[in-house]
Amino acid sequence: MTLDPFRLEGNRVLLLDQTRLPEEERWIDVRDAVGMAEAIAALRVRGAPAIGIAAALVLAVESGHGEGSAAERLGRVDLAGSLLRAARPTAVNLSWAIGRMIAAGAREAAASSDGDAWARALRAEALAIWEEDRAASRAMAAHGAALFPEGRRFLTHCHTGGLATGGGGTALAVLLELNRRREGGIEVWATETRPLLQGARLTAWELGRAGVRTRLIADGAAASLMVRERIEGVLVGADRVARNGDVANKIGTYALALAAREAGIPFVVVAPTSTLDPSLPDGAAIPIEERDPSELRAVRGVPTAPPGVRAQNPAFDVTPARLVTYLVTERGVQRPGSGAAPVLGVAPGGG
Amino acid sequence: MTLDPFRLEGNRVLLLDQTRLPEEERWIDVRDAVGMAEAIAALRVRGAPAIGIAAALVLAVESGHGEGSAAERLGRVDLAGSLLRAARPTAVNLSWAIGRMIAAGAREAAASSDGDAWARALRAEALAIWEEDRAASRAMAAHGAALFPEGRRFLTHCHTGGLATGGGGTALAVLLELNRRREGGIEVWATETRPLLQGARLTAWELGRAGVRTRLIADGAAASLMVRERIEGVLVGADRVARNGDVANKIGTYALALAAREAGIPFVVVAPTSTLDPSLPDGAAIPIEERDPSELRAVRGVPTAPPGVRAQNPAFDVTPARLVTYLVTERGVQRPGSGAAPVLGVAPGGG
Repeated sequence: MTLDPFRLEGNRVLLLDQTRLPEEERWIDVRDAVGMAEAIAALRVRGAPAIGIAAALVLAVESGHGEGSAAERLGRVDLAGSLLRAARPTAVNLSWAIGRMIAAGAREAAASSDGDAWARALRAEALAIWEEDRAASRAMAAHGAALFPEGRRFLTHCHTGGLATGGGGTALAVLLELNRRREGGIEVWATETRPLLQGARLTAWELGRAGVRTRLIADGAAASLMVRERIEGVLVGADRVARNGDVANKIGTYALALAAREAGIPFVVVAPTSTLDPSLPDGAAIPIEERDPSELRAVRGVPTAPPGVRAQNPAFDVTPARLVTYLVTERGVQRPGSGAAPVLGVAPGGG
Repeated sequence: MTLDPFRLEGNRVLLLDQTRLPEEERWIDVRDAVGMAEAIAALRVRGAPAIGIAAALVLAVESGHGEGSAAERLGRVDLAGSLLRAARPTAVNLSWAIGRMIAAGAREAAASSDGDAWARALRAEALAIWEEDRAASRAMAAHGAALFPEGRRFLTHCHTGGLATGGGGTALAVLLELNRRREGGIEVWATETRPLLQGARLTAWELGRAGVRTRLIADGAAASLMVRERIEGVLVGADRVARNGDVANKIGTYALALAAREAGIPFVVVAPTSTLDPSLPDGAAIPIEERDPSELRAVRGVPTAPPGVRAQNPAFDVTPARLVTYLVTERGVQRPGSGAAPVLGVAPGGG
């Protein structure tokens, strides 16, 4: 069963507050772009594909506000889009989904000035973005699972399941598919993923619900356990993939890629084409979000370091293409690490 | 100023409870080997050299118990040593210091049967072990600092300062010495070191007290920050070094060594010769302590994962000699990674 992190109901988006999971299943009401920008920045909704869809949904809600013509309402949606884009810089899906909503708004406004018809069209566009992501999850699960006709021991980082996307997830969807295909199931080693513990709170929880044998590990334990536990593949998601195949993903991913290469096992990045950014030549151009240092001075409100100590808290890192064995999108599998020239010569979003 | 994690006062050892730091400076009274074994297993005293010295001190206390002859008391100290040895398996310093105390006890008992003179001799032996470690810290600080005639940007893992040894520390002593030598001081990136946060709680605190510019980082951030921040060297301690130069140290060390090699910067292990174990041919033979999985399900008592999730919690990993640029002991600097044959052909303990 797919876990949806949001619902569109009338003129509001209901969001499952992921900062409260797994202790509490708390849904919050988001009625405008300001509320959604706050929710995205605070990681109430998170995961590269999911924040794109959440932004599209709230822009659909925004398009229904007011009584004006399509052209008048487009200005409001355009402004709302700028606000949302600034909420998190690294995942390109956010800006991609907003761009797609605004392009649809401009196209529809040119076709008719009827504001209500225009709002209906934007609502349909947002739901299409969501539905395409759901289909992409299914396709990625199949393409990714086909890479491992054998093997039962996998490692993953952060959280890339149903809550992080509009469908069943990215890397986690592949793992769930492998668990279905492999008689007796698979085993997954899940990093806790400091500082915000998405692996401990969300991945362990989602894998547990699905009945997958899971072991939670410290981030620092991954490299040696790859060897000791004879891990057969490392699967992660992505927040942005540059044209040459460099991958921005959750902080800690680069170290896992180095360890996978050393262990001689595949390092697999699973992401929909909405995560690809052909406008950037390589990973050096990807903006890396620096989050509040206080996330490192406490864990869930409990101090873990001397008060006032300086901390540095990049949310993402960049893994060079040469360390990526496979890049799985809904369209199939590419090999960025093979050195074959531009692997990402596809338009983002499967458009 | 050196931070001593213990004091010997009459027939007791006073221990600074490191699990309470930095919030609370709580000293506990240890009056026998059972109490010390508990304190070592619970990490109230920790750090490879420090637990060796703590065990020696409590054996000195044990030697003063009872009224018997030297030979009668030796049996008690021998038993106490077996108990202490089992408290933590990986750091060889523990077993080395116990072995040295028992050897001294046997030697002195053969020389004279006077129980009180024997107890005084064991007390002198324990204090000698401590004093030699203090001198080793000073020597390692000098040898290690000489490796970096330039450079201001260093990264370290876990805690290797005064609280972890009988003197000023191992890797942290080198960093403090570099900070003294370099006009304007150095900068240190300190990993928080999950699960028990020795980096956040102890290293950040000890560096802060010494006025060193410090940045606390997530363990997963180290690899990418080595590149982004142009780190010039990675310095860590060790819990056991095998004959071929393979190094067991705090979980996460191996990943740092891989990242340092990729970044083209020196990976430096700093440890007294009491950490060398020439009896083991290589790292595969080093016993790795598995700690309670509950350490990964909560941080300082606050749950961070679904209840009952399985976790795997190795406290150490093994870094192969080929990734170790320099091994600094009190006797000087060796290059395990250079491929030169047996680098550790020295007796442990500088004996």
